[in-house]
Amino acid sequence: MAKKHKHGRKRRTHVKPRRTAPGAAPGTLVADPAAPAPVISVMAYGPERLLQEDVADPSRLRDYIQRWPMTWINVDGLGNAATIEAIGKALGLHHLALEDVVNTHQRPKLEEYGDHLFIVVRMPHPEEPFQTEQLSMFLGADYVITFQERAGDCFEPVRKRIRERRNRLLEAGYLAYSLIDALIDSYFPVLDTFSDRLERLEEEVVQRPTAASLGHVHDVRHDLLTLRRSIWPSRDILNSLARDPIPLISDTTRTYFRDCYDHAVRIIDLVETFRELNSSLIELYQSTVSQRMNEIMKVLTVIATIFIPLTFVAGLYGMNFNTQVSPLNLPELNWYYGYPFALSVMLLVVAAMIVYFRRRGWIGA
Amino acid sequence: MAKKHKHGRKRRTHVKPRRTAPGAAPGTLVADPAAPAPVISVMAYGPERLLQEDVADPSRLRDYIQRWPMTWINVDGLGNAATIEAIGKALGLHHLALEDVVNTHQRPKLEEYGDHLFIVVRMPHPEEPFQTEQLSMFLGADYVITFQERAGDCFEPVRKRIRERRNRLLEAGYLAYSLIDALIDSYFPVLDTFSDRLERLEEEVVQRPTAASLGHVHDVRHDLLTLRRSIWPSRDILNSLARDPIPLISDTTRTYFRDCYDHAVRIIDLVETFRELNSSLIELYQSTVSQRMNEIMKVLTVIATIFIPLTFVAGLYGMNFNTQVSPLNLPELNWYYGYPFALSVMLLVVAAMIVYFRRRGWIGA
Amino acid sequence: MAKKHKHGRKRRTHVKPRRTAPGAAPGTLVADPAAPAPVISVMAYGPERLLQEDVADPSRLRDYIQRWPMTWINVDGLGNAATIEAIGKALGLHHLALEDVVNTHQRPKLEEYGDHLFIVVRMPHPEEPFQTEQLSMFLGADYVITFQERAGDCFEPVRKRIRERRNRLLEAGYLAYSLIDALIDSYFPVLDTFSDRLERLEEEVVQRPTAASLGHVHDVRHDLLTLRRSIWPSRDILNSLARDPIPLISDTTRTYFRDCYDHAVRIIDLVETFRELNSSLIELYQSTVSQRMNEIMKVLTVIATIFIPLTFVAGLYGMNFNTQVSPLNLPELNWYYGYPFALSVMLLVVAAMIVYFRRRGWIGA
Amino acid sequence: MAKKHKHGRKRRTHVKPRRTAPGAAPGTLVADPAAPAPVISVMAYGPERLLQEDVADPSRLRDYIQRWPMTWINVDGLGNAATIEAIGKALGLHHLALEDVVNTHQRPKLEEYGDHLFIVVRMPHPEEPFQTEQLSMFLGADYVITFQERAGDCFEPVRKRIRERRNRLLEAGYLAYSLIDALIDSYFPVLDTFSDRLERLEEEVVQRPTAASLGHVHDVRHDLLTLRRSIWPSRDILNSLARDPIPLISDTTRTYFRDCYDHAVRIIDLVETFRELNSSLIELYQSTVSQRMNEIMKVLTVIATIFIPLTFVAGLYGMNFNTQVSPLNLPELNWYYGYPFALSVMLLVVAAMIVYFRRRGWIGA
Amino acid sequence: MAKKHKHGRKRRTHVKPRRTAPGAAPGTLVADPAAPAPVISVMAYGPERLLQEDVADPSRLRDYIQRWPMTWINVDGLGNAATIEAIGKALGLHHLALEDVVNTHQRPKLEEYGDHLFIVVRMPHPEEPFQTEQLSMFLGADYVITFQERAGDCFEPVRKRIRERRNRLLEAGYLAYSLIDALIDSYFPVLDTFSDRLERLEEEVVQRPTAASLGHVHDVRHDLLTLRRSIWPSRDILNSLARDPIPLISDTTRTYFRDCYDHAVRIIDLVETFRELNSSLIELYQSTVSQRMNEIMKVLTVIATIFIPLTFVAGLYGMNFNTQVSPLNLPELNWYYGYPFALSVMLLVVAAMIVYFRRRGWIGA
Repeated sequence: MAKKHKHGRKRRTHVKPRRTAPGAAPGTLVADPAAPAPVISVMAYGPERLLQEDVADPSRLRDYIQRWPMTWINVDGLGNAATIEAIGKALGLHHLALEDVVNTHQRPKLEEYGDHLFIVVRMPHPEEPFQTEQLSMFLGADYVITFQERAGDCFEPVRKRIRERRNRLLEAGYLAYSLIDALIDSYFPVLDTFSDRLERLEEEVVQRPTAASLGHVHDVRHDLLTLRRSIWPSRDILNSLARDPIPLISDTTRTYFRDCYDHAVRIIDLVETFRELNSSLIELYQSTVSQRMNEIMKVLTVIATIFIPLTFVAGLYGMNFNTQVSPLNLPELNWYYGYPFALSVMLLVVAAMIVYFRRRGWIGA
Repeated sequence: MAKKHKHGRKRRTHVKPRRTAPGAAPGTLVADPAAPAPVISVMAYGPERLLQEDVADPSRLRDYIQRWPMTWINVDGLGNAATIEAIGKALGLHHLALEDVVNTHQRPKLEEYGDHLFIVVRMPHPEEPFQTEQLSMFLGADYVITFQERAGDCFEPVRKRIRERRNRLLEAGYLAYSLIDALIDSYFPVLDTFSDRLERLEEEVVQRPTAASLGHVHDVRHDLLTLRRSIWPSRDILNSLARDPIPLISDTTRTYFRDCYDHAVRIIDLVETFRELNSSLIELYQSTVSQRMNEIMKVLTVIATIFIPLTFVAGLYGMNFNTQVSPLNLPELNWYYGYPFALSVMLLVVAAMIVYFRRRGWIGA
Repeated sequence: MAKKHKHGRKRRTHVKPRRTAPGAAPGTLVADPAAPAPVISVMAYGPERLLQEDVADPSRLRDYIQRWPMTWINVDGLGNAATIEAIGKALGLHHLALEDVVNTHQRPKLEEYGDHLFIVVRMPHPEEPFQTEQLSMFLGADYVITFQERAGDCFEPVRKRIRERRNRLLEAGYLAYSLIDALIDSYFPVLDTFSDRLERLEEEVVQRPTAASLGHVHDVRHDLLTLRRSIWPSRDILNSLARDPIPLISDTTRTYFRDCYDHAVRIIDLVETFRELNSSLIELYQSTVSQRMNEIMKVLTVIATIFIPLTFVAGLYGMNFNTQVSPLNLPELNWYYGYPFALSVMLLVVAAMIVYFRRRGWIGA
Repeated sequence: MAKKHKHGRKRRTHVKPRRTAPGAAPGTLVADPAAPAPVISVMAYGPERLLQEDVADPSRLRDYIQRWPMTWINVDGLGNAATIEAIGKALGLHHLALEDVVNTHQRPKLEEYGDHLFIVVRMPHPEEPFQTEQLSMFLGADYVITFQERAGDCFEPVRKRIRERRNRLLEAGYLAYSLIDALIDSYFPVLDTFSDRLERLEEEVVQRPTAASLGHVHDVRHDLLTLRRSIWPSRDILNSLARDPIPLISDTTRTYFRDCYDHAVRIIDLVETFRELNSSLIELYQSTVSQRMNEIMKVLTVIATIFIPLTFVAGLYGMNFNTQVSPLNLPELNWYYGYPFALSVMLLVVAAMIVYFRRRGWIGA
Repeated sequence: MAKKHKHGRKRRTHVKPRRTAPGAAPGTLVADPAAPAPVISVMAYGPERLLQEDVADPSRLRDYIQRWPMTWINVDGLGNAATIEAIGKALGLHHLALEDVVNTHQRPKLEEYGDHLFIVVRMPHPEEPFQTEQLSMFLGADYVITFQERAGDCFEPVRKRIRERRNRLLEAGYLAYSLIDALIDSYFPVLDTFSDRLERLEEEVVQRPTAASLGHVHDVRHDLLTLRRSIWPSRDILNSLARDPIPLISDTTRTYFRDCYDHAVRIIDLVETFRELNSSLIELYQSTVSQRMNEIMKVLTVIATIFIPLTFVAGLYGMNFNTQVSPLNLPELNWYYGYPFALSVMLLVVAAMIVYFRRRGWIGA
């Protein structure tokens, strides 16, 4: 996703190629061969008991849901279309939704399919250039199924709470909220990174702007656009979860989603602020650079301007007029104090110019 | 549509001239004489059988619709008003809609005419400069009629599915969906092209900006505006097809249109992102160019500034003061080490200036 | 309205002075003395017969409406308040509407007054600078009354259809539609002009930008703003005519207005595109100009930079050190190959600099 | 409000200080000591009779309203809190509204207080820098009360109509409309001034831009922002008066307010156009200035570039190589046509450079 | 929060770090160890009596509310999670709301929790860089609870009114209004500061722009963004309080909130105006700077351009052509008036150039 740029910047690719060919029958699953193979792990629990295991055979998945009060099935890696299809078949997931799971370029969205909800949100990655991973979630009455692009997520604290104090997490809607809340909150450290980048950039731009600085500003803009594209639609989803009468979400959980919605709005606020600040860095940069250039040109031109009249005076007394022919021809050449006189004239010229330049503020006092 | 520009860029024309004269009675069909002649091809099928043939006589078209469970009539080329009119008459199409079919500059739109829907969308062409072709579609209870500006389209996979596995495609609404979906999805490869163009442009702008670079940025902006004008209204149409209670669209098909709507929104997202990135290329360009210019001017000015005092010293000792008249007149000229002394003075001046310039960071270390 | 500018551009006036004094009783008619005198012409017709004549006495106008199935009264010129008032009185038009007829700076609008509609739209003029003329229309059950600022309009095709094939035009709403449609469609040739102007401007700006170019861009922006101010509100009016349940407009006619609305939206699309393209011309211009300036300065500075060291060398051997006093003082002056040596040094310096400049890409290969 | 700026511009203050201290009990009246003292004048009238007098004692005001069919009380000047409070008490005005009357920085607004309406609009002043005065109006069933910041207003024509032909003005709502209409229409002359200022500025910017020009553009922007802040909310008020079912406004009067609303919309249109035109003046200015600067630098650099090679040639023949030592040392110095030869070389160089510069279009033909 | 920048500007940090870790159970309170410890003060009162005291034990707080008609509990400082939790427990506050109290980066918001409202607004601080403090408020039927980040607020006038004339303040909604009104009104002095800063900046930018000026403009922009982020959502809250049927707010109090809403809108108006003016300062700055630079470069180049031809003439007569060999070789050297002639030539050249430069307006008359 990120190739190395000549100027030391990592290059951003703008669009992920679509996996499925245009015109293919909808619901056709085409896995990315480079993606990691799916690993299925299950957390099934009731108030008293907890089962946590990895599952190799997708067809067994329905059993967990039927036997346990609450089941969370998590799939890491989408590199095998057959496995994903088997999971979908075992759990009765809609093929359009499954297609969206595999094509990991989805916009965050919320869709109702009969008895379950299909939610797509995007999990931020801390590295630079900024990237997001797609989290696809199916929410049923007593199960939550999540698909991630690869292992590693921000859900460890939720798993810990399931293991330790799972009372509230027996409700599927609340588990979904906990996962989404953890995901949304994981944007905050990312924003901190952006804040740091902007501060470093501002310092760079003001103190020691180089040819690469504007490239860095451009990169931040690019990353902010990516971030914005993943958080804006999330807000709409959270708004819907917090206000619409969705049967799978209890009133209490709705209050929690409202809180999560507030976080999303705050993230958007900050992203927009960052975008404005980043834009103004360009102006700062251009101004600093031209200021420096002006400074250099001014000093150089002042030096040249001071020496040009001096060179003229020297040239004057380098003329070969015949002083023998007439006393009018360069008589200074034969004065006793001729050379000191010429030097004094030069000094005077320099002094006058320096005074003049200083008065107009062109050179420092 | 695309003439060759002097600067090696293809020129864009901004408006297609309207065919029908202002004030003409509505529904007057005026064909573009330069357009290809209409070729009518029919795919008529039921669960068991399939008929696929070209039709020369428009008046026979109604028969297919009456005799077959499902008929798809496709017309390639709009160069003959009489033929189009005959088709319209045979199939009972509204003359206002027919006028829109022939005037191929329509905005994407969706209109209900009694028992059939009239849909206009725009099919992207992969070439540069970016262009779109108008696809006009009539959707009835058991037929779909499509008009294209010329032969060649993105519907081959749909035709293949009709030939091979046409169960779902027996519903007219679903066939319409399949065609529109194929069309919308054919924007994705176009977006890939834009992505590549933007990356190449960014590299060009940062590494070797020329006088033509900004022209290229301008062209991309132009193409993105065209793309935007054809995809934005498509979104509204898809939204309407996915949410409004249109009798010709079944609930199941509506779910599919929702998916298609999501794709349109994603395309819009990317178009807007591309527009922002393209805008910021202008800033990058201007900054790179002025940076390079500054660099050149700086080096040249530094060279000049270093030599100007030297020339002055040389001029000084080129003065013709009479050294015989007084010992004060340029005594250095008669010194034993006069010339070496002058050279040393010059070297010292150069060294001092270089040290000064280096300290201020004006020349590399 | 358009005075000649020093720079060869026609000057735009921004606001038309209001005729009626602020605070005057509403409905006070004050005619522009410079406007042409009103000429009233009537087309009265039924399915069988057609009467077409000019009318001098406004009080006779009501007779036409009462005696004929359908009457179209057209008034060209608004230069006589008494005549306009007499027309209004004869036909029972609201005085507020009449005031708007005379003050020809109205925004396009649609108002219901009891049994008739009052519509204001703006007719584009093809000349440059772009201007619009106000068309005020009263639409009753069996009459249409139109007021134009001066003779000459885009309604000839409609008149021709009335004379030749007036079946549909027996409905007042449809006649109103035909007139408005002709007016809206007459924007398309204007857009073609703008398209041409923009293309010419782009070529001018890229190929041979002059001091006046930006003025031209500024003029186009000005004209586009005028165009935009007259077409945007027209869209709202057409939307209202196409969707609101107005009794004077039949359902069939409403379908036609929907088509007309589509045209207005397309015009707006193009106007906005033109505005964007025009804005980007400014950037193109500034970039081209600074590119050219940079080119000139670069070449000039390169020339100066090459000669400055040469002049120094020449100055060096122009120094008057006494070669008799010591063999260290400018021994080159007495060398056999002294002059050729000096010339070679100069040539070497020039060659080195040219190689250096070429390597850095500052001068062409 | 307007202090003199060093650069000959009047300085704008951005915020009026608030009179009432934050946290004070709402409805606390604090008068501006510098404001003129209130002068109360009453116009009380019926169909037959008219009373017009100044009133010193606020407590008598209620009598007029009770005894006359229609009363208009106008207060000029707000410099005495006690008087304002007495007026409010006598007429039963809400203390929050009274607070708004005295704090003359209100945004235009419309509020219902029980049986009367409270309306705030802003009256434009023709002077530069642009300023507005607050008009506060109370509208009851048979009275209108207006508060102005100081004497002098745009209501003379309304007073004249009351004196001469007051039939319609017996309705309080219609009187309110007449006053607001006069006020809104008084924006048109102000817009004319802005139009003139913009035209003058455009000429200044294109013909003879000075350091102060951009300051003038900045001032116009400032004034347009002030104008915009006062007219935008007025539109909402007029919209509400023209469409909402407010009992104090009769249906007929509502039609008039609709007309007034149209005027407000037209003013907004023009203000936005002016803002765009003003923005583009900055680009014009920067372009003109840099064009001029470029012109100067080009000519100067061309002169320098032409002379530098000449000086080099002169320096060449000023070298002191010993022509006695060898025939290779500057043999030209001893040629019979040496000096003419040198001059010819110089002329040739000049001619070549001029031809080259002319070909590249750097100097005029 | 504000570190000292090298360029004499205080640096802004963009995001406050979140206290609670992502994924933690909602409602987990984590106090900022650096924050001041909570100090609880109570004002409990009825029409006759008033009790004002500091409370150390949170568990006693419920007693005040039960025993007194009206209680205002204010907490200054949030540095101890246990204390905040105890307060929340004693008063039955929702743990999600409590979490928002402690995480003092909340956006202004209004939430209903069963029988009480939870309101967050932000109190402005007058210092530069601009900062806001979070005020969290719980509003019940007969109590108001406020949490502030630290001691010191804008509520002194409200406390004074409670002590002196508390009749209206016996209603909890009205007390809440009084506090929020005082808070909103405390934005006005802040706006005055911004107005002053902008005026000072404008003067600085126009009169004596330095390298730091743009940094100052950037800082103002930053502060305006912060200000905007805290006032915009406040407007929505006030709108909701003024229009929605919230049982805790009486109709009378709603009228007051409408007034407060007006103030918020006015603040927003001014903030947006300030933002526009600030943006245009950048243009002013860039223009002033380049104007000055141009002035300098022009003068310097004029000086150089005048001297270069002079130096050439001097060089000409410094050539060593042998005047003995031919009368064509520099005969001027042997003229009686040779030197005066050369000087005259030089003077003439200078005069001609000065006349030319003056005519073109490049140097002052």
